[in-house]
Amino acid sequence: MPRSLAAKRSTGPVVIRRQARGLRTRGAILQRAVHLASVEGLEGLTVGRLAEELGMSKSGLFAHFGSKEDLQLATCETARQMFIDEISVPAMSAPKGMPRLWNLLDRWLGHVERRLFEGGCFFTAASFEFDGRTGPVRERIAAIMREWLAMLNRSVMEAQKAGHIDPKVSADLLAYEIQSLALGAHWSKQLLDDRQAYSRARAIILQKLCAAATPACPPFPAMASRAAAHSGRAKTPSFA
Amino acid sequence: MPRSLAAKRSTGPVVIRRQARGLRTRGAILQRAVHLASVEGLEGLTVGRLAEELGMSKSGLFAHFGSKEDLQLATCETARQMFIDEISVPAMSAPKGMPRLWNLLDRWLGHVERRLFEGGCFFTAASFEFDGRTGPVRERIAAIMREWLAMLNRSVMEAQKAGHIDPKVSADLLAYEIQSLALGAHWSKQLLDDRQAYSRARAIILQKLCAAATPACPPFPAMASRAAAHSGRAKTPSFA
Repeated sequence: MPRSLAAKRSTGPVVIRRQARGLRTRGAILQRAVHLASVEGLEGLTVGRLAEELGMSKSGLFAHFGSKEDLQLATCETARQMFIDEISVPAMSAPKGMPRLWNLLDRWLGHVERRLFEGGCFFTAASFEFDGRTGPVRERIAAIMREWLAMLNRSVMEAQKAGHIDPKVSADLLAYEIQSLALGAHWSKQLLDDRQAYSRARAIILQKLCAAATPACPPFPAMASRAAAHSGRAKTPSFA
Repeated sequence: MPRSLAAKRSTGPVVIRRQARGLRTRGAILQRAVHLASVEGLEGLTVGRLAEELGMSKSGLFAHFGSKEDLQLATCETARQMFIDEISVPAMSAPKGMPRLWNLLDRWLGHVERRLFEGGCFFTAASFEFDGRTGPVRERIAAIMREWLAMLNRSVMEAQKAGHIDPKVSADLLAYEIQSLALGAHWSKQLLDDRQAYSRARAIILQKLCAAATPACPPFPAMASRAAAHSGRAKTPSFA
């Protein structure tokens, strides 16, 4: 084996510590990149802009990310992982079926409302920013969004399998409506400064789940109390 | 009156013809600007980029628009007027109540589907592009979107006044759901290349209107035939 290759493959303790530090730095940089991109857009996220934000040298950042596109792609992966860590994985702790579906939706809306990403929903912003373009960044955003829609869809089907949601309900369409209502909430909050945006979306989604629920669906207090809290603040949704 | 001021106020036939030609040119330029912005974004719409697109000189364009911001604001006004001319005004020809509401929604979805704006929905793209910014362009986009939501809301209330929609239905919430479903369709079409995006949104909206309708609501063939056509192509919405 040539010496240089052997050195690259070295896994001595110093090298491992250095790699770990590099990964931590990379992770910290990318967390900042996600927040910055959620506010200023993914296209504005250049190595130069990020260096300025972090008070680092551009050459230091180039060691982590060779190009703007690499940085954008790595930022998308970080945002996806933040979403998984904060929303998808913890939601699995709720009992299977409707409780787990609601836990997922509740965490999702709650995290966007409480700014998991500083500028609102990273993926909504990225979707609309890149939907008119071509290339690997757009393709990656679209793939992550397809993955999310599939997860919503699967969660509805699991609630049907558990006997909590009417099997006649189209999981595809319910997932699509839920996603649309969340997009409406992001739009209304971000553009129109609508403070009721998320509580309204949450109440409508909850009403939809209640309408789709079977008699076997376990009642869970979060549903009743949230619906009651909302109906006191705003008009109760009165259409199906 | 100083001579220069008198000259400016002159309304002789030559001046009027020149002004009319100037307005026509300005109108034609702005129509192109709307399409370009719907594809590339309003921020990318500079006097230089538009000059390149139109094969005009930058100085020629500067005579029409003093700054990038003036150009962006004039482009928003043109898009708003195109929407009014193609959608809001023709919809008024339908009978008051539910037929007029459906005519408005049908034209709206149809025009976006058939690309009234080349790059999809100009205002959805502009909303998400400017929602993280401040300034006159963002304020104008938000005002136009509030005007549109108010129009949707008013159309639902008029259908209630005509006795076609259950008075217990919240017009606010129905308007919000309809707008969210359209945002979902734009997202799904533009990012995910979803060919069913508009027919799905149309079918769900139609189903919502049917669920909200009173027995006094006139049946109109467009509703039945479209619902039937859709149910043959895709899964019928089966949740309320």
